[in-house]
Amino acid sequence: MNTVELIIKKRNGKALTKDEINYLIHSYTKGRIPDYQFSALLMAILLKGMTKAETSYLTEAMLHSGKVIDLSYVKGPKIDKHSTGGVGDKTSLILASVVAAAGVNVPMISGRGLGHTGGTLDKLESIPGFRTNLSLKEYKSVLKKCGAVLIGQTKDIAPADKKIYSLRDVTGTVESIPLITGSIMSKKLAEGIDGLVLDVKTGSGAFMRKTKDAVELANSLISTAKAFNKKVIAFITDMNQPLGNYIGNWLEVYESVMVLRGKKQGDLFDLSMNLSGAMIYLGGKAGSIKEGIEIAKEQIDNGKAFEKFVQMVELQGGDTSVILNPEKYPASKFKSKLKSTTNGYVKEINTYQLGMAALELGAGRKTMSDKIDPKAGIIFNVKLGDKIKKGEVVAELHSQSKDKINIAKEMILNAITFSKQKTTKPKLIKKTIK
Amino acid sequence: MNTVELIIKKRNGKALTKDEINYLIHSYTKGRIPDYQFSALLMAILLKGMTKAETSYLTEAMLHSGKVIDLSYVKGPKIDKHSTGGVGDKTSLILASVVAAAGVNVPMISGRGLGHTGGTLDKLESIPGFRTNLSLKEYKSVLKKCGAVLIGQTKDIAPADKKIYSLRDVTGTVESIPLITGSIMSKKLAEGIDGLVLDVKTGSGAFMRKTKDAVELANSLISTAKAFNKKVIAFITDMNQPLGNYIGNWLEVYESVMVLRGKKQGDLFDLSMNLSGAMIYLGGKAGSIKEGIEIAKEQIDNGKAFEKFVQMVELQGGDTSVILNPEKYPASKFKSKLKSTTNGYVKEINTYQLGMAALELGAGRKTMSDKIDPKAGIIFNVKLGDKIKKGEVVAELHSQSKDKINIAKEMILNAITFSKQKTTKPKLIKKTIK
Repeated sequence: MNTVELIIKKRNGKALTKDEINYLIHSYTKGRIPDYQFSALLMAILLKGMTKAETSYLTEAMLHSGKVIDLSYVKGPKIDKHSTGGVGDKTSLILASVVAAAGVNVPMISGRGLGHTGGTLDKLESIPGFRTNLSLKEYKSVLKKCGAVLIGQTKDIAPADKKIYSLRDVTGTVESIPLITGSIMSKKLAEGIDGLVLDVKTGSGAFMRKTKDAVELANSLISTAKAFNKKVIAFITDMNQPLGNYIGNWLEVYESVMVLRGKKQGDLFDLSMNLSGAMIYLGGKAGSIKEGIEIAKEQIDNGKAFEKFVQMVELQGGDTSVILNPEKYPASKFKSKLKSTTNGYVKEINTYQLGMAALELGAGRKTMSDKIDPKAGIIFNVKLGDKIKKGEVVAELHSQSKDKINIAKEMILNAITFSKQKTTKPKLIKKTIK
Repeated sequence: MNTVELIIKKRNGKALTKDEINYLIHSYTKGRIPDYQFSALLMAILLKGMTKAETSYLTEAMLHSGKVIDLSYVKGPKIDKHSTGGVGDKTSLILASVVAAAGVNVPMISGRGLGHTGGTLDKLESIPGFRTNLSLKEYKSVLKKCGAVLIGQTKDIAPADKKIYSLRDVTGTVESIPLITGSIMSKKLAEGIDGLVLDVKTGSGAFMRKTKDAVELANSLISTAKAFNKKVIAFITDMNQPLGNYIGNWLEVYESVMVLRGKKQGDLFDLSMNLSGAMIYLGGKAGSIKEGIEIAKEQIDNGKAFEKFVQMVELQGGDTSVILNPEKYPASKFKSKLKSTTNGYVKEINTYQLGMAALELGAGRKTMSDKIDPKAGIIFNVKLGDKIKKGEVVAELHSQSKDKINIAKEMILNAITFSKQKTTKPKLIKKTIK
């Protein structure tokens, strides 16, 4: 096959065949197509799109660039969740334990944080000793023992995605529904799962600012999952404010532990129960999402979910003492309260900006080589629709640097828009797509 | 400036500013932007287009990536011609001499052949000793002495174009009007000309198959030339059949010499006179194109054009004896006549295919490193609308290889479509745009 002719075919808006997509992905992964040709192809895909069939072929080619984990030896259903990412989104930590406690295996391969969003791996690694770089053998062993495992992407899993993602990042070709679909689904399908629950976020802190785009991505992910005979449910959820109140790696583990220990209110709890319920339903342990949610809540009430979390932390080498006694965790050098300078109802929160403020404090990274301060972050007390009085504490900032706290305070104040009129709370789950 | 942000800006269909385009072109030329980013930008430009202003900025940035030749010391007007290329297109050889004989300087920097089209440099180099790689000093000296000079692109002229063109060629980004415009005009403007006549070809042997696309390109070239205060006229001309009858490097020099010596009929003569007339008009030596054409014809009749050609060949180191006595030129090892296998009127000629047949015989190159056989080629006797009898000679093939002749014969026969009904001759000049 001729690479230039295939670039021209896609550029002219024609659909590529399965063989052509296989050739392109495998040749690029093996270094036989240079970056400069592949980036032209990526731009053509971004601007001309791909059909459902092409998106499935792309996903399949990326999936088979590496290993597909065989979990057939693990009894029972295996269901994972994928979130498109947001600020304060720590549901993975909660639902892995809840769903495993309900008898559904959760084999989860996660990512790291970059830019305004945190990553599950970074959050878990704030627990002293916690290892996310398990071998495939250890991965299988932890899953078998505890029903949940949370690791990072290995070199064996969809290496095409790693190479393609790096190129997209520097060539203005990130925001393409088929390319995002291939990237997400090739990794998820490699886990050896039976089904997948998708949390596609939309709003000021999400990659998809507009609900329309989030729905388009959800539909693409669903059609691809179905092409691989996987059970799938997608939720379009609100990311116009942080999920929960804690932003930052250890702070998010702390908040997750609070939920697992029975703090049963707020958007974080509600969304975690919804996602867990859908996973339990897909795993065949409930007749509906609603019933799944009831079962999920029981796992919190009866303490099994928290036990499961402690077990998983232990099996992955983490220090369970900080989970059992979170107050033992070392504190940040500086903690500072930010007070409101105005009276009013919270009308808008620039959630992206809040994520960037947490990054500024040390909780995130601008480039993949940056180091993270696990203790740094923000406890953000404010929700959309809240009535705030001047002088009221809107946030507590944790950092090793006083200068950074001052910069972040400014960013947080600028991120909140107040209104004299009463404002409404957004709907947490905007849409459920099966 | 941030390269990725500029790629995204263009990808989103926004116009880039002059500063942004300067940054992109100069950084890429200097190797500070990698190929993989620039190719994504090229694809975005191809698919999203550029405004007239952007196209001028692009041309200016490419022009100033190298030297602009100062010809102010040469007295009189300096007018060049650019053709978008076709099969048998040898007008440059004729008009340079005709126009110089009429007192208008023709400083011409030309290209080599690639694929189905020949290049003026290769044609001239079929004359033993002819040097196309003159230094800028020699270029100026020949122009001053004789009023016409024909050389190849030097490293000093628009180096951005060389680098960008190589990348476009392997990334499916050749067919973009703004990119083609920047490539052509940056080189032509570097010559130090006052005006330019454009021969934009359309048809089965042209890069622009459709007249609509040729007109679009002509308009883009014209608006860019005007942005640089250059006089300009464009002709949209037919390339649904070879121009003249000779295809191949020496064969085309031979046919040009025949025209310069007074063979005053056929499409090659007509187009050469039209282009010459327009150049003489732009150079201020005639009051109209029509008058320019009359002056051009006089230069043939009075022998001055041929004298000029001989002088130019001599000044550029060529052996004038083969120009004065073309029969002295070494013959190809094999010459073979191709006869028609059918009766009928010539309805269509796949001119691209004819160019490829000439290439097969040794007259062209598939890649820039291929060697050319200057003697090889085709004398093609047939024109659209001609009535051909079975057994009539349609072509004479010249090559060093009998096998190649057999392959090329098959290609030529397949390239001609006959009809029982009378067919029409195409209009040579479809449109004149000022």
